[in-house]
Amino acid sequence: MSQRNKQILLASRPAAEPGPENFRLVEVDLAPLQDGQVLVRHHYLSLDPYMRGRMSEAKSYAQPQALDTVMIGGTVGEVVESRHADFQAGDSVVGMGGWQQYAVVDAKQPGALRKVDTRHIPLSAYLGAVGMPGVTAWYGLTQIIEPKAGETVLVSAASGAVGSVVGQLAKARDCRVVGIAGGAEKCAYVVDELGFDACVDHKAHGDLKSMSQALKEACPKGIDGNFENVGGTVLDAVMLRMNAFGRIAMCGMISGYNGLPIPLANPSLILQSRLKVQGFIVSEHLALWPQALKELGTMLANGRLKTRESVAQGLASAPEAFLGLLKGRNLGKQLVKLV
Amino acid sequence: MSQRNKQILLASRPAAEPGPENFRLVEVDLAPLQDGQVLVRHHYLSLDPYMRGRMSEAKSYAQPQALDTVMIGGTVGEVVESRHADFQAGDSVVGMGGWQQYAVVDAKQPGALRKVDTRHIPLSAYLGAVGMPGVTAWYGLTQIIEPKAGETVLVSAASGAVGSVVGQLAKARDCRVVGIAGGAEKCAYVVDELGFDACVDHKAHGDLKSMSQALKEACPKGIDGNFENVGGTVLDAVMLRMNAFGRIAMCGMISGYNGLPIPLANPSLILQSRLKVQGFIVSEHLALWPQALKELGTMLANGRLKTRESVAQGLASAPEAFLGLLKGRNLGKQLVKLV
Repeated sequence: MSQRNKQILLASRPAAEPGPENFRLVEVDLAPLQDGQVLVRHHYLSLDPYMRGRMSEAKSYAQPQALDTVMIGGTVGEVVESRHADFQAGDSVVGMGGWQQYAVVDAKQPGALRKVDTRHIPLSAYLGAVGMPGVTAWYGLTQIIEPKAGETVLVSAASGAVGSVVGQLAKARDCRVVGIAGGAEKCAYVVDELGFDACVDHKAHGDLKSMSQALKEACPKGIDGNFENVGGTVLDAVMLRMNAFGRIAMCGMISGYNGLPIPLANPSLILQSRLKVQGFIVSEHLALWPQALKELGTMLANGRLKTRESVAQGLASAPEAFLGLLKGRNLGKQLVKLV
Repeated sequence: MSQRNKQILLASRPAAEPGPENFRLVEVDLAPLQDGQVLVRHHYLSLDPYMRGRMSEAKSYAQPQALDTVMIGGTVGEVVESRHADFQAGDSVVGMGGWQQYAVVDAKQPGALRKVDTRHIPLSAYLGAVGMPGVTAWYGLTQIIEPKAGETVLVSAASGAVGSVVGQLAKARDCRVVGIAGGAEKCAYVVDELGFDACVDHKAHGDLKSMSQALKEACPKGIDGNFENVGGTVLDAVMLRMNAFGRIAMCGMISGYNGLPIPLANPSLILQSRLKVQGFIVSEHLALWPQALKELGTMLANGRLKTRESVAQGLASAPEAFLGLLKGRNLGKQLVKLV
């Protein structure tokens, strides 16, 4: 009898806010390996905000995911069986296996599967601080914001997988670092555990005026670099506090992911404050990943990069955990543990 | 009896749209020259959109102009009397003399007064293509847009002092160049005289959908670089047509100069299309002016840079000419001729 594999498919596209009905759990047979293929048993799935974009048909930088296919996503796991010379059973690997228990990977494709060392870095970290979210933080901070010591760097979604790394990298560069997060618990985590200089609770400052005043207090010398994950009113307030020649790295606009338009209230500030606002996608800058992963891996192994994980248990919990992520219910990196 | 000097002062700040009542014509005595001073008789005043910003008290990159002082602005003229060794009566000079017939200039201040050569370049061009507007075009195009041959460059206010130079500089770099201008006459000028590949009449395409369709036809391969002078709905339509890794030089937002908010409808496009949007002010990049002026002056002297001037006659006509400029009534560089 052949091995069985549980998968979660994209069942339908959300009209606005996604729900459990957009996903479907199925069970299929695993086909025998072809030459060059590797069978990976997933230990963790990564859940990330960008997946929301793939669920829609709207024009974006990535092709929408086809209906009735396995939800895409990063994965870490162990090699169970290999018909490729570079991989052996027992190897720890990171890949893009998607929301399923097992993946059959064509290991001949460059970048499809990468062996990782788990002696000093836990396997799950390769989906977080030493993986795509970490490199995202590193790229936006070092390549777009380019902070100088003494400058003020702000990051929204500061307790999340990306934001938490942005702030710690900026602290390591001797910046004043201020986060924005939702709720007192997240803000306390950002300041007390991650070492940010301050954190503004956006739930306590729901309108532009209140948020603007809170930012003024948290950033008395203005904002030189902003790492933007959210957009909307928070970004409008941030724009008002940007210093001349400030830089904004546009990484995400999660407040607009359900199709509601989120205009930028005052784009004239880009001119008045001579800002640079730049969008980026980390997967388009693969040449810089080794440099980024080296810094991130060293910091993590040395205990100078703190992380937290929100872990959902079992494949069937992935949709709910993902919907919670979109609502900000997680703290740190959202994972699904499969074994 | 001492020499008299007519001046136009800022009499009051506009609540919204400025009008003639915001200006006041006065006549005063010219004081005798102090050591180091130079008396300049103005031949032309420059009228530029940035002056609108100075009339308001709103926060901007420049200090608001004080009430009851001479309207600021670029000027060209001739030296009438000099108590500075570098200047002699008869010298042609460019400066920031403001809206008045004569200026007493402290020539010891670096950059206050510059001698210019009028053998191959007409004096008035130092207020246009070979002056601040030309360098503005050069800076935004070469330092922010950085166009490559074969790319499509778009510029709004294409028949104006800045836009007309942007397009011709981009053509010289083998780009496809598309303008946006108001009305058939301006569009014909932009294509037939300035040599743009196409020009979209924004008056014939007043809504987002119509403008977007017109841009699609004029820019079949999308837009790689946008030189923004206007903002508002036109910019929203441009954003929808920007190619991946496109660059937007934010030079002006004239559609919002009267205090109406002009939001950017879809800032998510900065992320989705990985755009760089950057504001700049040309006076902050003085180190590059010699390089820019060399290219602009050479092109103009060789007949490869075409310009037009709208010339109002006499100091008293300056307010009306300025208000017309804000409404787009001029073609090319708006000047006031004083002698």
